[in-house]
Amino acid sequence: MPEFLTLLPPADALKKLLDHLHADPDPEQVDTERALGRILISPVTAPHPLPEFPRAAVDGYAVRAADTFAASESLPIYLELAGEAPMGAAPQVNLTAGKCVLIHTGGMLPEGADAVVMLEYTQPVRSQEIEISRAVAVGENVIEIGEDVEEGQEVIPAGTRLRPAEIGGLMALGFTTIAVARKPKVGLISSGDEVIPPVEKPAPGQVRDINAYTLSAAVESAGGQPIFYGIIPDTYDDLAAAAGRAKTECDLVVITAGSSASARDLTSQILDELGRPGVLVHGVNTRPGKPTILAVCDGVPVIGLPGNPVSALVNAHLFVNPVIKALLGERTARPWPSVRAFLTVNLPSQAGREDWVPVRLIYPSLLSRSWERGEEPGEGGEGYLAEPIFGKSNLIFTLARADGLLKIPPDATGLPAGELVEVYLM
Amino acid sequence: MPEFLTLLPPADALKKLLDHLHADPDPEQVDTERALGRILISPVTAPHPLPEFPRAAVDGYAVRAADTFAASESLPIYLELAGEAPMGAAPQVNLTAGKCVLIHTGGMLPEGADAVVMLEYTQPVRSQEIEISRAVAVGENVIEIGEDVEEGQEVIPAGTRLRPAEIGGLMALGFTTIAVARKPKVGLISSGDEVIPPVEKPAPGQVRDINAYTLSAAVESAGGQPIFYGIIPDTYDDLAAAAGRAKTECDLVVITAGSSASARDLTSQILDELGRPGVLVHGVNTRPGKPTILAVCDGVPVIGLPGNPVSALVNAHLFVNPVIKALLGERTARPWPSVRAFLTVNLPSQAGREDWVPVRLIYPSLLSRSWERGEEPGEGGEGYLAEPIFGKSNLIFTLARADGLLKIPPDATGLPAGELVEVYLM
Repeated sequence: MPEFLTLLPPADALKKLLDHLHADPDPEQVDTERALGRILISPVTAPHPLPEFPRAAVDGYAVRAADTFAASESLPIYLELAGEAPMGAAPQVNLTAGKCVLIHTGGMLPEGADAVVMLEYTQPVRSQEIEISRAVAVGENVIEIGEDVEEGQEVIPAGTRLRPAEIGGLMALGFTTIAVARKPKVGLISSGDEVIPPVEKPAPGQVRDINAYTLSAAVESAGGQPIFYGIIPDTYDDLAAAAGRAKTECDLVVITAGSSASARDLTSQILDELGRPGVLVHGVNTRPGKPTILAVCDGVPVIGLPGNPVSALVNAHLFVNPVIKALLGERTARPWPSVRAFLTVNLPSQAGREDWVPVRLIYPSLLSRSWERGEEPGEGGEGYLAEPIFGKSNLIFTLARADGLLKIPPDATGLPAGELVEVYLM
Repeated sequence: MPEFLTLLPPADALKKLLDHLHADPDPEQVDTERALGRILISPVTAPHPLPEFPRAAVDGYAVRAADTFAASESLPIYLELAGEAPMGAAPQVNLTAGKCVLIHTGGMLPEGADAVVMLEYTQPVRSQEIEISRAVAVGENVIEIGEDVEEGQEVIPAGTRLRPAEIGGLMALGFTTIAVARKPKVGLISSGDEVIPPVEKPAPGQVRDINAYTLSAAVESAGGQPIFYGIIPDTYDDLAAAAGRAKTECDLVVITAGSSASARDLTSQILDELGRPGVLVHGVNTRPGKPTILAVCDGVPVIGLPGNPVSALVNAHLFVNPVIKALLGERTARPWPSVRAFLTVNLPSQAGREDWVPVRLIYPSLLSRSWERGEEPGEGGEGYLAEPIFGKSNLIFTLARADGLLKIPPDATGLPAGELVEVYLM
């Protein structure tokens, strides 16, 4: 039986892990102006309507619509000017029939007014008289009470990642602090006897730690709090001790194994003994990333990633990010941002396996005339070229040169040059 | 002449502003592990090759390729085992003809070896003898010195926004601190006599400040450092004083005008007197955002945004973000992330004007069967539905409900239902 039939596809592997999690994020109260990117823990309902009073949507004259029904350019009507609506205060005038009040965009409509005539269709004729050359309907050019949100309405669902617009909405409703999900602590363990801290100078045979830092940055981007556990020697006792400590102190543990097969087997053995139920998935049907291990140990998810930097970071996208989102209770179903591009070369792939290929995007302004198909670059990425960056998965600059990842689905045996493909931005 | 012919399209307006800037970002030395999202100020060149020694790409035996040329499954050859390459140190053995060394992925090749035979094609036969059943070519299963990057090679260009992969690459080369562009200070001035701080309870006619907070979050996302100048009364003296102070202290000033026409005129007058050359663009041919003002005052860019929250935030995307990127020296030509979706309704638009319409994405799992075209949701957003959110540009929750913005280009008079459109994520 070919090996890929015995390995789980990445999506199924992830589901198996997520099914074992019972995410119940802890709340943390933060200043709303510092809450960008945080995950709302409970739904927000409006304590009052927005706006709280009828507002003019344009500059003009507040009127009773009924007074204007007969107005037209050829036969204007005339209203008595009863004053000016102040900005930031309730007008002191009660608008009775035949009268109007000068009002500015955002101003509060006076009592009795139900519409605003735009300045363009008015003209002062005498000191206290305004000519109106267009009829308005009730509510025209008015933002009604509750037109943005009504009192008691749920305005932001739980699990929303807060963007600038949500921050503004919370401020509009007076929520200057807000309960968000505490950032999950993500313990990062590097192993490998050849790995040294980046600040040191490698002796022959040694390499600087890369994975702790790429993963730390990826964890930070996803909304987690990375915690370093250092570079652990490839022995059972050392790795088991570090994993045990991280499991107690963190919400998620990520171990990047030494790169040899024996180091990977060690990780798997340790995770099976770290807590119940232990290893759920040992190996996924993807490249890079086949040796990925997914485990849950006494309720704490533990992910063993391959030691090669490209495999580690690509699989962090596939497994670590979604687990962090689950732990945060994030329910924002936004897609992984992508652009469409034309593949520059034939890309072979083994059927039955999901491949993720680093690609560089070539932007329209950089398009060389040698591109044979002759398509014009269009809007929104169509017309970009996707150029695969080939390299062994040990080569970190393969990813630094890449703009994104191209997925070759398991049912394809490759993709032809010129194919329009989706590039997931990194 | 229709008004839209006298107004600049947003791209031309932006270019006019950028042409007046001479961005020369100040450097700031930061720890590389805290540099995610920062902009590299000078190109990084590799101080040494990566890897610095030839490494095994697989588990197996390091050999001299010439020794294996005759090896095949039916007629294997036999090599003398000369030891095991240690992880993290130089092997102490010099590989001579007829010998091999056990090696693990990532291990350093011994002197004299030029290829690795994968473990799968080997078998120990006697205590010091290994059977080899496949020939390897010189360099096979080896990561050569400099295969990732060569010494002196430019590995990350100036102006790159650092992602996890770049952070890892810098660490691999020993750059534990790095010079990035100092975050531009962006002064935020809110005006409007009706606007109060969010922490206060609005009296009739008053509304809480929204723009300072949506813009602050947008500035932060783009890589700037927001600085609040408070809510300034709509008088010439107060606004001119605040703008003058912000111009001296900041790299970019953003003023959200009071919402009335007279308040907007006030902003324009102040910016013309604040410094040379003053207002460059007064009004852009877009909706929302027509009253946007772009100015440069004694070298400092100043942007006047409409007071309506939706206009202010949409136009921050179109003008404030690109100016921040220019001030940072960012040259990462990555596209604004977008997804493709089918428009749910006919969307009218005025020809000659660029419209930006907030839309909600409806995700495949939420697709109702009432969707008439019957397309199946595909990969990467194709098959999503884009549902415009209609609302006056005063309504902040219009944007909080939106996943992104849909652009209707100026040469279109609208878009038909069912059209496949690009939604720019917010």
